[in-house]
Amino acid sequence: MILILTPNIEPESDTYKQLMAHLGRLHNIQLRIHREQGVEQSLTEIYLIGNTSAIPVEDMKTLPGVGRVVRVSEEYRVLGRHKGDNRAAHFDYQGLRFGQDTLHVFAGLCAVDTTEHVETMMRVLRDHGEVCTRMGAYKPRTSPYSFQGHGEKCLPYVFELAGKYGIKVVAMEITHESHIDEINEALLSAGQPTGVMLQIGTRNTQNFELLKIVGRQQDYPVLLKRGFGITLAESLHAAEYLASEGNRKVVFGLRGVKTNLADPHRNLVDFAHVSVVKRLTRMPVCVDPSHAVGSRGNGPEGIPDLMHVTAQGIIAGANMVLVDFHPAPERALVDGPQALRLDELRQFLEDVQIAREAYEKRSALAERYRVTDADVVRTV
Amino acid sequence: MILILTPNIEPESDTYKQLMAHLGRLHNIQLRIHREQGVEQSLTEIYLIGNTSAIPVEDMKTLPGVGRVVRVSEEYRVLGRHKGDNRAAHFDYQGLRFGQDTLHVFAGLCAVDTTEHVETMMRVLRDHGEVCTRMGAYKPRTSPYSFQGHGEKCLPYVFELAGKYGIKVVAMEITHESHIDEINEALLSAGQPTGVMLQIGTRNTQNFELLKIVGRQQDYPVLLKRGFGITLAESLHAAEYLASEGNRKVVFGLRGVKTNLADPHRNLVDFAHVSVVKRLTRMPVCVDPSHAVGSRGNGPEGIPDLMHVTAQGIIAGANMVLVDFHPAPERALVDGPQALRLDELRQFLEDVQIAREAYEKRSALAERYRVTDADVVRTV
Amino acid sequence: MILILTPNIEPESDTYKQLMAHLGRLHNIQLRIHREQGVEQSLTEIYLIGNTSAIPVEDMKTLPGVGRVVRVSEEYRVLGRHKGDNRAAHFDYQGLRFGQDTLHVFAGLCAVDTTEHVETMMRVLRDHGEVCTRMGAYKPRTSPYSFQGHGEKCLPYVFELAGKYGIKVVAMEITHESHIDEINEALLSAGQPTGVMLQIGTRNTQNFELLKIVGRQQDYPVLLKRGFGITLAESLHAAEYLASEGNRKVVFGLRGVKTNLADPHRNLVDFAHVSVVKRLTRMPVCVDPSHAVGSRGNGPEGIPDLMHVTAQGIIAGANMVLVDFHPAPERALVDGPQALRLDELRQFLEDVQIAREAYEKRSALAERYRVTDADVVRTV
Amino acid sequence: MILILTPNIEPESDTYKQLMAHLGRLHNIQLRIHREQGVEQSLTEIYLIGNTSAIPVEDMKTLPGVGRVVRVSEEYRVLGRHKGDNRAAHFDYQGLRFGQDTLHVFAGLCAVDTTEHVETMMRVLRDHGEVCTRMGAYKPRTSPYSFQGHGEKCLPYVFELAGKYGIKVVAMEITHESHIDEINEALLSAGQPTGVMLQIGTRNTQNFELLKIVGRQQDYPVLLKRGFGITLAESLHAAEYLASEGNRKVVFGLRGVKTNLADPHRNLVDFAHVSVVKRLTRMPVCVDPSHAVGSRGNGPEGIPDLMHVTAQGIIAGANMVLVDFHPAPERALVDGPQALRLDELRQFLEDVQIAREAYEKRSALAERYRVTDADVVRTV
Repeated sequence: MILILTPNIEPESDTYKQLMAHLGRLHNIQLRIHREQGVEQSLTEIYLIGNTSAIPVEDMKTLPGVGRVVRVSEEYRVLGRHKGDNRAAHFDYQGLRFGQDTLHVFAGLCAVDTTEHVETMMRVLRDHGEVCTRMGAYKPRTSPYSFQGHGEKCLPYVFELAGKYGIKVVAMEITHESHIDEINEALLSAGQPTGVMLQIGTRNTQNFELLKIVGRQQDYPVLLKRGFGITLAESLHAAEYLASEGNRKVVFGLRGVKTNLADPHRNLVDFAHVSVVKRLTRMPVCVDPSHAVGSRGNGPEGIPDLMHVTAQGIIAGANMVLVDFHPAPERALVDGPQALRLDELRQFLEDVQIAREAYEKRSALAERYRVTDADVVRTV
Repeated sequence: MILILTPNIEPESDTYKQLMAHLGRLHNIQLRIHREQGVEQSLTEIYLIGNTSAIPVEDMKTLPGVGRVVRVSEEYRVLGRHKGDNRAAHFDYQGLRFGQDTLHVFAGLCAVDTTEHVETMMRVLRDHGEVCTRMGAYKPRTSPYSFQGHGEKCLPYVFELAGKYGIKVVAMEITHESHIDEINEALLSAGQPTGVMLQIGTRNTQNFELLKIVGRQQDYPVLLKRGFGITLAESLHAAEYLASEGNRKVVFGLRGVKTNLADPHRNLVDFAHVSVVKRLTRMPVCVDPSHAVGSRGNGPEGIPDLMHVTAQGIIAGANMVLVDFHPAPERALVDGPQALRLDELRQFLEDVQIAREAYEKRSALAERYRVTDADVVRTV
Repeated sequence: MILILTPNIEPESDTYKQLMAHLGRLHNIQLRIHREQGVEQSLTEIYLIGNTSAIPVEDMKTLPGVGRVVRVSEEYRVLGRHKGDNRAAHFDYQGLRFGQDTLHVFAGLCAVDTTEHVETMMRVLRDHGEVCTRMGAYKPRTSPYSFQGHGEKCLPYVFELAGKYGIKVVAMEITHESHIDEINEALLSAGQPTGVMLQIGTRNTQNFELLKIVGRQQDYPVLLKRGFGITLAESLHAAEYLASEGNRKVVFGLRGVKTNLADPHRNLVDFAHVSVVKRLTRMPVCVDPSHAVGSRGNGPEGIPDLMHVTAQGIIAGANMVLVDFHPAPERALVDGPQALRLDELRQFLEDVQIAREAYEKRSALAERYRVTDADVVRTV
Repeated sequence: MILILTPNIEPESDTYKQLMAHLGRLHNIQLRIHREQGVEQSLTEIYLIGNTSAIPVEDMKTLPGVGRVVRVSEEYRVLGRHKGDNRAAHFDYQGLRFGQDTLHVFAGLCAVDTTEHVETMMRVLRDHGEVCTRMGAYKPRTSPYSFQGHGEKCLPYVFELAGKYGIKVVAMEITHESHIDEINEALLSAGQPTGVMLQIGTRNTQNFELLKIVGRQQDYPVLLKRGFGITLAESLHAAEYLASEGNRKVVFGLRGVKTNLADPHRNLVDFAHVSVVKRLTRMPVCVDPSHAVGSRGNGPEGIPDLMHVTAQGIIAGANMVLVDFHPAPERALVDGPQALRLDELRQFLEDVQIAREAYEKRSALAERYRVTDADVVRTV
């Protein structure tokens, strides 16, 4: 059960103290307090943990300082969308809003290889009005003998160039807690020219120790990818590891699932789960067409599968797209075959726009029918 | 290798006889002749079977009566989209055109239960301007002790009501060759009031004996569903069983794949394969959102997952939608939970329309960029 | 609910008539009668179908002629192993007993190619004391352009040679009902020199129409293979289609499941389900190492994977082994790479024997501990 | 390419220096040196890394100090079984030998709960002559709100009791590098009463950062479990992460794969891969029946599925069994339903023995046939 306090109740206030005194008398119930300090107001949520089934919502509502009470379902306590729970499902970072109602494209390099490629990529993004990118510094690879990414070494120029070209957020996979320190330091040295969204890849979805550590920091939002071979529910539970440690700025990423039924795609695209994740939780949902499809190939009308599946994600309401581009895919060190070329970026962005507009029309249509239905009910 | 003759060459003509005499002298090559009698013209294709790698395309082009020559790749000889092969990818049935560039919605009953439900369904379809439907008479069920469909008994009223309400094509699953005879007879008795698209379900995708028999008739087009647990390529090979026996009026149906990674959907939606099937073969592609999703559940904007995945199929170019509706889903004998209600049909059709328009815009965009690229090349 | 009558109650007897009169008065309960005529006695089972939950077992036991009463669980009515149900789980065919306590090896040709290979195979089997074999005449193949088996044409020599070398049962896949007629005729023409076990392959596990027709004949026992991509329960339900039509001589075949997690084997070996099928149903269980493994490859001790998985099936209690051998695997028309060579047959059979003895020791061990436990309980 | 030096060549020796001087002149080839100091002799292997395809094996054999030369296949450089590579495939720890020819049973608690249960378990193991156990202190759990193991707190009594009852090796899962330090410290404090085999679970199979850190220490051998949803090859590559950092004391663990085709088992048992892993690599192979099967259930002869699949692993040559036992399964905090009871330990161990003897007989049989075949060849 969650008690959402009326805004701006300070821990030192009498109201707060009375409330806590009361809650302290509840038998076998532990409290966990989460406080968000926004620009204009502070919000406090108190989680009642233990067997709360016997505690009436109505009683809690009457307590001093309590604004709303949400009875939490068993699963996804923090990130879940509970019955009657209309709390905002978004967060702000670097002046951008990430929510279940926004859309951001993160086009960029799967793996940073050369300074030139990074600069070319960023400049082209700037020229197309984009302010987000993906840049892989730490690359987990199946074999220990493959290229593992330039790591810490490339951070200085990646961040500097991001700043130079007005990129506000760089999505970057990390595979060890030490990478956060390295990113911290590089950003600090460069004068905080940009922001970072930490990415947890599919191989680490259930690396709970990493999740707990990433969850304890609140500097960076986190993009958690769905895990290989585990159910959607198990991946959503993994997101709770981040949130239960305090970081709720979590985007959930769909990237296809591994099965022989996906051929000729590398993975079976799972973007039908966009609306499922948005229904079960309050997380924005990202789709990764590049790792899902894993190859080039066009439909007979000349549209690449990569753009088809991107459009499929967006028309169902996806909030973020992570996509591989490369100035010279044939020379990319990792996953070149799945990267789009820079001269395809304009078509890609316009294609995204068409799909987004279709989603908005579909939402408006649904809204219209809902209103109509309500009218019908009212007049009966 | 396929020789496509110039139109209207008759088997009795000298040209034809000369051609055949020549082909008869090819060593170790068998011929298979396929003739399509259209309204305005007849088309003849001659398949050269055997080791044709040593036969030059150029030589064949000079033979009398030969219009074009297509070198066939190993796979999907008849239905495949071969290199440089721009033959039309569509067929006509009951005055409707089914191609890789058209879209038809087949909304209807998963399983026929009562005359009243059939009539209600058909009337509502007519009222919404629809001329196709799905009506399940023969239902393959996991357990022999479950309801198996009304079978032959319901055909008379299904077909009669279809005629009454202007339905031109009824998609209907069959599971045994005898069902074709039953359908023939019922249509004949009722005075051919409507047409039928024979549906082969996922349990029979590799029931090759049934496919061969269905392939030998050319009265009815066939909708072949992708098979459970087999690769996409294996299902496309199964379509070749139909075509190699003579029936090329084949629509390929995607209906999700069975895996525990699909939860909470019944199957993992595989509509990312729409463009793959259209690229590898010349078949129109159908999506079946009902069996793929298998349940109700809305995104937070109030749109059912069923409509989301339908839109995903269509924005990528799907040519047909097979979808379960029911006047009283809670009383349906089969798969009630996945059926949409009749009062949702209007929203569904408008939603489909939005997605289709988005697909058309995307295609035009791709065309525009292709032209631009060509210009660039030309001016270089 | 099943009423098992005391042996040798004839339908004309007074007891039987009284019983039926009584049962006829049960409200909303339908009867299905199954009669087995054995050499020494006849057995009658009466299935009460409908809502039998309100009918007390005790009442039924007191009815005239009723020996035992079994309350049937929902699933697998005929073939299932119900609570307290200790009916024999075996059948006899061609003088051989097939049960959950027996073991038979069916080594032979995956696909019949030449008379010489058939004769060589049979002679070698006879020389090793074997009386069963597998011989594929009808081969379902992924592509319509692949070799489909010699079909009907090879039946005369296959059956004649079987008779010549003392083979009592030939396992043979069929894919269409007409194949039964062809087998009937060929056996009749040849003077019934051998017997046939009809095999339903993995592509037809849910070809319910074929199952119903095969289930209606009782001349031949049936080996039903587990289906691709469906759950074990779904495949067991398919077996019920055979039994519910009257044929209970059903062996259930495990042959691996298709998944990318099987590599380098063709399928993921599923022989851990041997004991599951034997627990849930009364069917003998067959394992097919050849199609499961699909390739040659030895462990470091020199034992082929094919023999390892066979031993795994047997040590857990498998009752039948279907295995591909070929006189010249490199010239086999179908699945040559997975066939064992004739000079490996002796090792194979001895290897099987070692595993079977281990199973028997394990069973005796379990029996000993069960007795001990019972003693302990008794003395407490 | 690997150069295996003749034993006891010291880095200070002239031979060694001459060899290194020569190797230093190879173009674009890097060297990695691995040295094993055994009780009686030291062994040195030199890995040539880079494009070695142009370097003749024969040339390398003639270099000073070189005993043997193995051309390494691309994959699994360190742990792989290369062509003509007959180096020993075993290691020693705590006086026990772990190899592809040995068998050890690690029965114990999936998760440590109480001191009493730990002591009971250890005493019973001692009474049955066992010297290995499993004890879970750090438990990765799907939900952050589930019991996560007692962690560091339980180590002192676990190790002390292990020492008291003569347990030589405790298999223990770790999920973070800090756990190694905690184990080090606890063992040190307790006076090194026992040894530990570090276990990497299926959720961390591709947690490469953890693997690298675990690979850098050589105090403890490592049991690496196969990963969820990834191919066998990908899991074997993960083992190379351990070995490429220096630790070759690696046991590979099979524990079933997650798929809906496993029902009613929790995972689909994959022990058919025992011989595959032993063929592709030189690692001993462990089977984990408890997590594979995940439930209780007996075959009709009264043997639990858990024992059936254990026997299946062993008859194919498994070298280690990790199995859950619990003094009171119904009160276990984690995975109680899959634990065997202590009064079943004796039957379990005898059952294992029967299967092991069968494996040994099968190996002897294969050896006999190999010799016979060789004779045949010789006499031809």
